[in-house]
Amino acid sequence: MISSKLPKVFYGGDYNPEQWSKDIHTEDLRLFKLAGIDMATINVFSWAKNQPDEATYQFEWLDELIDSLYANGIYICLATSTAAHPAWMAKRYPDVLRVDADGRKRKFGGRHNSCPNSPTYRKYAEQIADRLAGRYQDHPAVLVWHVSNEYGGECYCEHCETAFRVWLKKRYRTLEDLNRAWNTSFWGHTFYDWDEIVLPSNLSEHWGNNKSNFQGISLDYSRFNSDSLLECYLLEYHAIKRHIPESIITTNLMGFYKELDYFKWAQHLDIVSWDSYPALDTPFSFTAMAHDLMRGLKDGQSFMLMEQTPSQQNWMPYNSLKRPGVMRLWSYQSIAHGADTVLFFQLRRSIGACEKYHGAVIEHAGHEHTRVFREVTQLGAELKTLGDATLDASVPSRVAVIFDWNNWWAIEKSSGPTVALKYLEQIHKYYKAFFDQHIQVDIISPSTEFNKYDIVIAPVLYMVKEGVAERLEQFVEQGGTFLTTFFSGIVDEHDLVTLGGYPGKLRKLLGIWVEEIDALLPTQQNRIVLKEKIGLLEGSYACGLLCDLLHTEGADTLAVYGEDFYQGMPALTRNRLGNGAAWYVATDPDQEFLYGLVTSICTELGIRAPLTAPDNVEISIRSKEGMDYIFVMNHSREPQQYHIQEGTVFELISSQEYSGEVTIAGHDVHILRRSQL
Amino acid sequence: MISSKLPKVFYGGDYNPEQWSKDIHTEDLRLFKLAGIDMATINVFSWAKNQPDEATYQFEWLDELIDSLYANGIYICLATSTAAHPAWMAKRYPDVLRVDADGRKRKFGGRHNSCPNSPTYRKYAEQIADRLAGRYQDHPAVLVWHVSNEYGGECYCEHCETAFRVWLKKRYRTLEDLNRAWNTSFWGHTFYDWDEIVLPSNLSEHWGNNKSNFQGISLDYSRFNSDSLLECYLLEYHAIKRHIPESIITTNLMGFYKELDYFKWAQHLDIVSWDSYPALDTPFSFTAMAHDLMRGLKDGQSFMLMEQTPSQQNWMPYNSLKRPGVMRLWSYQSIAHGADTVLFFQLRRSIGACEKYHGAVIEHAGHEHTRVFREVTQLGAELKTLGDATLDASVPSRVAVIFDWNNWWAIEKSSGPTVALKYLEQIHKYYKAFFDQHIQVDIISPSTEFNKYDIVIAPVLYMVKEGVAERLEQFVEQGGTFLTTFFSGIVDEHDLVTLGGYPGKLRKLLGIWVEEIDALLPTQQNRIVLKEKIGLLEGSYACGLLCDLLHTEGADTLAVYGEDFYQGMPALTRNRLGNGAAWYVATDPDQEFLYGLVTSICTELGIRAPLTAPDNVEISIRSKEGMDYIFVMNHSREPQQYHIQEGTVFELISSQEYSGEVTIAGHDVHILRRSQL
Amino acid sequence: MISSKLPKVFYGGDYNPEQWSKDIHTEDLRLFKLAGIDMATINVFSWAKNQPDEATYQFEWLDELIDSLYANGIYICLATSTAAHPAWMAKRYPDVLRVDADGRKRKFGGRHNSCPNSPTYRKYAEQIADRLAGRYQDHPAVLVWHVSNEYGGECYCEHCETAFRVWLKKRYRTLEDLNRAWNTSFWGHTFYDWDEIVLPSNLSEHWGNNKSNFQGISLDYSRFNSDSLLECYLLEYHAIKRHIPESIITTNLMGFYKELDYFKWAQHLDIVSWDSYPALDTPFSFTAMAHDLMRGLKDGQSFMLMEQTPSQQNWMPYNSLKRPGVMRLWSYQSIAHGADTVLFFQLRRSIGACEKYHGAVIEHAGHEHTRVFREVTQLGAELKTLGDATLDASVPSRVAVIFDWNNWWAIEKSSGPTVALKYLEQIHKYYKAFFDQHIQVDIISPSTEFNKYDIVIAPVLYMVKEGVAERLEQFVEQGGTFLTTFFSGIVDEHDLVTLGGYPGKLRKLLGIWVEEIDALLPTQQNRIVLKEKIGLLEGSYACGLLCDLLHTEGADTLAVYGEDFYQGMPALTRNRLGNGAAWYVATDPDQEFLYGLVTSICTELGIRAPLTAPDNVEISIRSKEGMDYIFVMNHSREPQQYHIQEGTVFELISSQEYSGEVTIAGHDVHILRRSQL
Repeated sequence: MISSKLPKVFYGGDYNPEQWSKDIHTEDLRLFKLAGIDMATINVFSWAKNQPDEATYQFEWLDELIDSLYANGIYICLATSTAAHPAWMAKRYPDVLRVDADGRKRKFGGRHNSCPNSPTYRKYAEQIADRLAGRYQDHPAVLVWHVSNEYGGECYCEHCETAFRVWLKKRYRTLEDLNRAWNTSFWGHTFYDWDEIVLPSNLSEHWGNNKSNFQGISLDYSRFNSDSLLECYLLEYHAIKRHIPESIITTNLMGFYKELDYFKWAQHLDIVSWDSYPALDTPFSFTAMAHDLMRGLKDGQSFMLMEQTPSQQNWMPYNSLKRPGVMRLWSYQSIAHGADTVLFFQLRRSIGACEKYHGAVIEHAGHEHTRVFREVTQLGAELKTLGDATLDASVPSRVAVIFDWNNWWAIEKSSGPTVALKYLEQIHKYYKAFFDQHIQVDIISPSTEFNKYDIVIAPVLYMVKEGVAERLEQFVEQGGTFLTTFFSGIVDEHDLVTLGGYPGKLRKLLGIWVEEIDALLPTQQNRIVLKEKIGLLEGSYACGLLCDLLHTEGADTLAVYGEDFYQGMPALTRNRLGNGAAWYVATDPDQEFLYGLVTSICTELGIRAPLTAPDNVEISIRSKEGMDYIFVMNHSREPQQYHIQEGTVFELISSQEYSGEVTIAGHDVHILRRSQL
Repeated sequence: MISSKLPKVFYGGDYNPEQWSKDIHTEDLRLFKLAGIDMATINVFSWAKNQPDEATYQFEWLDELIDSLYANGIYICLATSTAAHPAWMAKRYPDVLRVDADGRKRKFGGRHNSCPNSPTYRKYAEQIADRLAGRYQDHPAVLVWHVSNEYGGECYCEHCETAFRVWLKKRYRTLEDLNRAWNTSFWGHTFYDWDEIVLPSNLSEHWGNNKSNFQGISLDYSRFNSDSLLECYLLEYHAIKRHIPESIITTNLMGFYKELDYFKWAQHLDIVSWDSYPALDTPFSFTAMAHDLMRGLKDGQSFMLMEQTPSQQNWMPYNSLKRPGVMRLWSYQSIAHGADTVLFFQLRRSIGACEKYHGAVIEHAGHEHTRVFREVTQLGAELKTLGDATLDASVPSRVAVIFDWNNWWAIEKSSGPTVALKYLEQIHKYYKAFFDQHIQVDIISPSTEFNKYDIVIAPVLYMVKEGVAERLEQFVEQGGTFLTTFFSGIVDEHDLVTLGGYPGKLRKLLGIWVEEIDALLPTQQNRIVLKEKIGLLEGSYACGLLCDLLHTEGADTLAVYGEDFYQGMPALTRNRLGNGAAWYVATDPDQEFLYGLVTSICTELGIRAPLTAPDNVEISIRSKEGMDYIFVMNHSREPQQYHIQEGTVFELISSQEYSGEVTIAGHDVHILRRSQL
Repeated sequence: MISSKLPKVFYGGDYNPEQWSKDIHTEDLRLFKLAGIDMATINVFSWAKNQPDEATYQFEWLDELIDSLYANGIYICLATSTAAHPAWMAKRYPDVLRVDADGRKRKFGGRHNSCPNSPTYRKYAEQIADRLAGRYQDHPAVLVWHVSNEYGGECYCEHCETAFRVWLKKRYRTLEDLNRAWNTSFWGHTFYDWDEIVLPSNLSEHWGNNKSNFQGISLDYSRFNSDSLLECYLLEYHAIKRHIPESIITTNLMGFYKELDYFKWAQHLDIVSWDSYPALDTPFSFTAMAHDLMRGLKDGQSFMLMEQTPSQQNWMPYNSLKRPGVMRLWSYQSIAHGADTVLFFQLRRSIGACEKYHGAVIEHAGHEHTRVFREVTQLGAELKTLGDATLDASVPSRVAVIFDWNNWWAIEKSSGPTVALKYLEQIHKYYKAFFDQHIQVDIISPSTEFNKYDIVIAPVLYMVKEGVAERLEQFVEQGGTFLTTFFSGIVDEHDLVTLGGYPGKLRKLLGIWVEEIDALLPTQQNRIVLKEKIGLLEGSYACGLLCDLLHTEGADTLAVYGEDFYQGMPALTRNRLGNGAAWYVATDPDQEFLYGLVTSICTELGIRAPLTAPDNVEISIRSKEGMDYIFVMNHSREPQQYHIQEGTVFELISSQEYSGEVTIAGHDVHILRRSQL
């Protein structure tokens, strides 16, 4: 998409010359050239500079900046500068300030600080986007429009409360329907007038850590808040499109960010972009999963890595340096999973305020003679060599894991059965079972087409939305393999229980009835005992967290509980339906069990890793025009061996041919090209 | 009392058909019959349904419901529906909304949400109680009136502040007396006008976890808040009594609920009722102690078990299922300690909102073919067999433990000597020393008559109210055995220290002077070293928390400290006074020491267990008309043996005769009838 | 200074007879005489008593009290009673009430509760100080004036916000300068009008535990708040001085109290006084360091120990008794480090409110027959014997540790690189390395004259104020030894980074360039490996927290890292400059390393302990008129040996001569007089 301008992975990042003098900017241009930088994200936080008061706009500095960058071969990702409102606006129009979940009105400060339903914010945000688009619509440097920055957070002000009621009227039409959806007859919360409805907050229905008395109202608030911010995005989006219909517009997402339903947002992004900030001890499988989610948002379309740090963060408890080679390794990891740009936050490090200890291409020392700069330069050169080989390439996967924001919210707002259930942990656990065996996975939404996959995994599919059960049944009947777990099929999209027996709408598909759900204390465990060997699975495995007590209704019992009063009841079942099978894991097993289970299922379906490699070596493939580009990434410090099963392949970075047993250095990357099988 | 209608333990629970359709109600009636259910608590949260606006009341649905239940043999525990105010009321009259201890005005939400001093709430709560009583005064189905639900919480609004000043004027008459009682000359807090007094909150005198700068004002606030809620209860109580003088009125209590002084409340309850929710890992001795407190509130009168869950709760961190047999076991435990009803929350499980994962007689599956329903049915049948055998029966105890809400508040609002002192833990520790040896204990208030007991235990009797020391002296002089501990006799009811030497008013009784009190770090310990063997007590035992450094003034030193600079000072003393003895345990010993101590004292007084049994088998007796009903309850999963010392006894559930060594199955219960000794 | 009245260490403490009856006061006078008490601090919390309403003052009770104390040989430390405003003032003038960092307006309660910028508070506080000074200006009993009490805390009200803007205008003159100092171009926070600036709070720039988005504004708020309270102090100070120019005025400080910059305050105190409250497990080196700080505030001038407890505190989690002898030991410790008074909080224990469990000379028992009273009496007698020997004596130190409140604030408001960096821990770690080897240390500010020391240590000198680097260079060139650590030389006083390479202004002095800073996880460690033996230092030592990755630019590398990718890079360097040396410790080493390092440096400079003693025996010297008074303090329970290297010395308490090997009893103190070397 953006590859029309330069047939290579764009390289650069956030740049804030408004914090610096002219001569430093000149020096920056010299350094950018050294590093091979060809894209800069600018104007992210310049609202106060651009609009010093209500009536005045001043963009001359921006004209100059864009021209000077472009003159030096640098394309622009142009932000709209609305990510933090000016101090004068907060002073004059306090409606731009948010109110938090404890009812406290914020004062001017921080960023992401504007109420999404503030009339003032909406008016001026749209206005500045409009002016920017009008001014730069024809500038050849501007490749991507970057609306605001890292949308997020919540507001509980009166403007939001009023807007919430409007949103609800549109959704439910009548109070009868709303009362039914929220089950307000419980605790006598029946609403007789729309104005009686207040935002669910720590002052009304919420308590503890994100728990709610009424999941229905709280779910709707989460949806409303995500929609409110999306509306802000869309105001700017449309303001730009009015001037430049063919513009490429995005806003930078944040991976598994709980507050916003990115599947809904992505429909309105021309390209997905995101900010990736793993810590030293983040499992690299988790980072990979986040990239896969970002790719999944637009159904496999490649995305922009909008931000990553060249070395350390500043906002974590312990901000480790990226070890030598790791920035490069993780950059290739993003490409391997679908990124078509590699951008940093930030090109030059601030002198003051809270991000001055965040890494940058140009450090406080101010010159090129640093380890970080050298590594940035090396990667810059390599990306030139790589050229357009991977641009717009797809990532072929036969396995999909369903992830759903609504389900995430609903599970964790639930009061009972256990506070220990974390949806993301469950998603990662199943993802990792494939990932560690070098099997590519897509992360999809429940409304993604299932039929292009062989295997669909839905860990804790607690909420089953309209039509999903039917589509899953069809998928299985046509030969698909479906797997879900304990605490699935319980509620509809209002968090109302499907009566008649769990797992509700999935009961037929799974051929089971779950009678009871036992929550285990952190000190308790049970065991999954295999009835007979299934592939690598044999003997018994630890499990815990929740244990479903179920009865089969057509499914086969493959394993049973080993302990407690439900010893002997099914813990793993498989239901044959049509040409496919639907598996049910009735409890939370250890990772070993999942490795065995995944291996068994994949083996049966003939799904296997493209290479043989140890599990600290990651394998990921991009495919394009009949060629596979196999990324081999060594996440350990030590050299590792991997094995090319057949033939000879070409390695793009070194321009060498490899075959058979290959040694890959610590933290090194190989990109192997071969014809698609 | 309520046994006049049906000569058996009433069986049933909370029922909310307003959440369901007609045909589900019809199905419920069928299922109730199967389960042997004959009582339903209704109308608990129906205020918004009953009164959809200020001027309108609609009770037709309730007429129908009561009739339909009664027609199916089900009696009614009729709630007044004031446990959660309607949304319209919060919207129109914000004075019904509470202000929390941080000064935050609540918005509509949750339950137990009404300010107890709100004029609007008081007006409408009384009004609806009045209407209900007028409407159903002659209905034969209504056996018990259930005012509101689980009263609790606090409010810090302006209405409460004004009411607090009125309450204080009534209590102190003059500001001089108030200033003296609160010792306001400390830190120059002297009040010259009643209006200068503000509620003690996190914005004024409170800090940390429940600590206060001025214990006097904070104690008075706790009393005032308990009284304010009691006034709300009484408004409804009297509204009902005006129509039905002979009605039986209660509200459901919550065991050791800190905010309300239930000894004061119980004076205004016709029958005590309470909600019992032990967790999987709650010691069964603690549950027993709570039952004994509930029985003690009205001086031994039997009580209603108003709520328990058929299986799991939803509001704990980890909501375990009740193991097979445990619901039955704990139901009998409540009867053994004085309950004359066995009621559940809830008869049918909600479809939505925060209690949908709370257990119910009828689960989401909606039919009778569940483990839970089968266990409920079995117990229903057994309770029919049991008939009226235990109704109104007393629980004979020769030992009493003094428990006092004012003392609880005062100890834990104290700044120093240690944050680790928890009153309830100390109460349970001494209770358990008797309980584990199968010796029945009453939990009494300091104003209960002591002379009917052989032993009175008062752990940490920090606050000694007017007249209590004199009554204890008299009790001991007449032959009683009294025991108290460290940090006792320190203050009067205003939390003002009794000068002249600790333990103040108890000094003569105990024959000691406590010079200093050492608070131990969690990592520190001392030892209690016996001077010579006393019964089973010999050698030395670990102790900690607080160590009194005391001198005897007439008492005998039975044990001394083994370590630190106060090595050799008394740690256990006994003062002979008249015909009795007063014991003092100067520190917090391990449980082993207390077993030995209790055994020694009981042996000397000829108090012994009715049966020989291991300590995971509980024994409790109810007596009536010359007969003892000995409940033998096996709290372990495995079978246990117990021994009937003499003769043959009749077991009521199995209708068998037992003698000598008896085996009781895991989680099983025997009810042995024998003539009183 | 105050020694002109009585040639001895004044002895006594806080006394609140307004809480007591006449006859108790009479009894107190008898007990004071027994205990050798000759100073009482009075009128600390009597504002409400002194001024019962706006128009009325009543001091007759104070006249009587002062006369009666003086008649009994007791001098007065006269407080101004402004430490807690009266209730009527809070009711009538709510501007005296503070607003907290969460924006919550306080209600009447507690103490230290007045907004420092409240017009009402300032007016009445000044007025009462004026009246007191006028009334008692000629009273011979009054030796010291004690303004308010333990100033502290913060306020975020509108009065403070307005005053903050005034303070900023004075500091920055123009908004351009302010915007530059705060780097507001970051995140577009540019201010175009002074009124747009709001106080940095949890509602604006602050988050988490004391972290800020904009360190510049937050640092200025800390300075402003410290100054605001100082202004309150000065209003009273000048009111007194107007009446009594020669008065000695103080306010009691609290050691390492973070909120107030005591180096700035001390300039306005005639004598420093402070309240020392170590816990049972506070290292005695930490207490010594706090005393040394208090002495350092006025450049070595002796100070008053204004408060300590005779035995326990009440406000700690676990309030241990002071073991026998410990109160005496710690009293002498304060004298050894520069105290010329020994005062207690409190002389008589309150009957009610939150300090009733705080130790006192006269306990609740009310008589002299207590361990605590006996120990107080013994010390009283000894202090008479000691006479004026140590009054005004200096504490000779060749080593100084730089401590700076601005640096403390800046380090801990920083976002990154690690939350684990605690400035005070680093200060104590280096202090302790000398202290445990019996080498006297001064705690000084960065503006103290360095040249009088041989060694200046500046742990984590993150902020380098104007002129400090130059003065340190001069100090080293002239032969001084300077040592600093990782994360030094980073910012200026606005928390703006010194560009061009760390450690900025210290780079030339240290001869190094720090390229990167690695923050270690709590589970990570590295090692410092010595290149060759330096004194006792050899082999390798554990280190962690932060690791600077540095390059020498003239300095010698003495040790290197042993692990990770920066293995072999310098971890300890020494730069020879002129006649001196500048050391750099690039990471946070274990205490063992620091012992070795300090020993090496001291040995080279001929600095050694005055006596040989084990490290639980503290040694500290005061010098006067050619004599040294060596305090030998045994902080262990067991007897210890120490060694007098040469000659015979006179011990003042026992009036005995000692030489050679001396045994000192557990918790005992020797004061050895010898001619200065």
